[in-house]
Amino acid sequence: MKELVERIRQQGKVLRNGILKVDGFINHQVDPLLMDVCGRELARRFAHIGATKVLTAEISGIAPAVMTALHLGIPVVYARKTKPVTMPDTVLLTVAPSHTKGVMTELIVSPEYLGNGERVLIIDDFLASGATIFGLVRLAQAAGATIVGIGTLIEKSFEGGRALLAPLGVPIESLAIIQSMEDGQILFVEE
Amino acid sequence: MKELVERIRQQGKVLRNGILKVDGFINHQVDPLLMDVCGRELARRFAHIGATKVLTAEISGIAPAVMTALHLGIPVVYARKTKPVTMPDTVLLTVAPSHTKGVMTELIVSPEYLGNGERVLIIDDFLASGATIFGLVRLAQAAGATIVGIGTLIEKSFEGGRALLAPLGVPIESLAIIQSMEDGQILFVEE
Repeated sequence: MKELVERIRQQGKVLRNGILKVDGFINHQVDPLLMDVCGRELARRFAHIGATKVLTAEISGIAPAVMTALHLGIPVVYARKTKPVTMPDTVLLTVAPSHTKGVMTELIVSPEYLGNGERVLIIDDFLASGATIFGLVRLAQAAGATIVGIGTLIEKSFEGGRALLAPLGVPIESLAIIQSMEDGQILFVEE
Repeated sequence: MKELVERIRQQGKVLRNGILKVDGFINHQVDPLLMDVCGRELARRFAHIGATKVLTAEISGIAPAVMTALHLGIPVVYARKTKPVTMPDTVLLTVAPSHTKGVMTELIVSPEYLGNGERVLIIDDFLASGATIFGLVRLAQAAGATIVGIGTLIEKSFEGGRALLAPLGVPIESLAIIQSMEDGQILFVEE
């Protein structure tokens, strides 16, 4: 999507270890107008799949997921990384490696809000190795829900996430697809 | 605000320790349409204060803050609880007690996105003791910014937060104000 690709070109920074810094408009400071445009576009691409719920992971998935859910008119659930006291004693929990933190993090969902028969659209900020999204897939499947689509803002196609998720057989959409970040140069896959 | 008060009446639950559970529409599952209405109303109430940035704390402040910022047309910064690798080495950090977790949590903002001359509107999900919001106030002041308003979805007026923040001399707006939750009964301050 042109608006997002342009913003990454202008403000994205390649850090060491292959991390793309987009803290100025997605991950720490958020541009809500850009997120609204991105959510509208993801909602358009997934309008036909009959999703009943959006699922994401805290923290940086929340803004794009809420905007996508707004334009689809369905609720969004964000998996928590720590279990708050408001959650029931028994929850759904899985672990996934965190790309930017270098540790394993927990992903926790209350069975109150993700259940049998739900049709789940997973939305996140990044599709890189796919590990976090695959964790969300496991949570949804453990809840008895069906995954019907996966959407992200930015995909790093050279990290293999799409291949990991392809066996699910659901549409995978990313608004900006990066094919390489060598020498700090961001190369996009042309739409 | 009528829509929010009604939703709390229908789905809010008073847990032990005076915690109000609103996990079904704000804190774990989010109703994006309700958040949009709340954000629009907060934006209306703060339309005149000339805010240049919304500041909130991860995690549950993000949805209402992004929606408020969307309707004001300004960026939102969410204070992080752990420092990601994308942040510079030197950051603004304060600590505040977490009401629902019973521990001290860190609130971290990068000076890249909060600086001298900014006019900051703080938005959060709850105003209870005011400790988290006061932490955000300290961060903004340390950055050289000016606090121009404080808005929350739900205020528990019996926990003293408003009195703590009143000396700032800025408008404080909450969309639903609860005066008591004794015996599990939620009593609202009438608008």
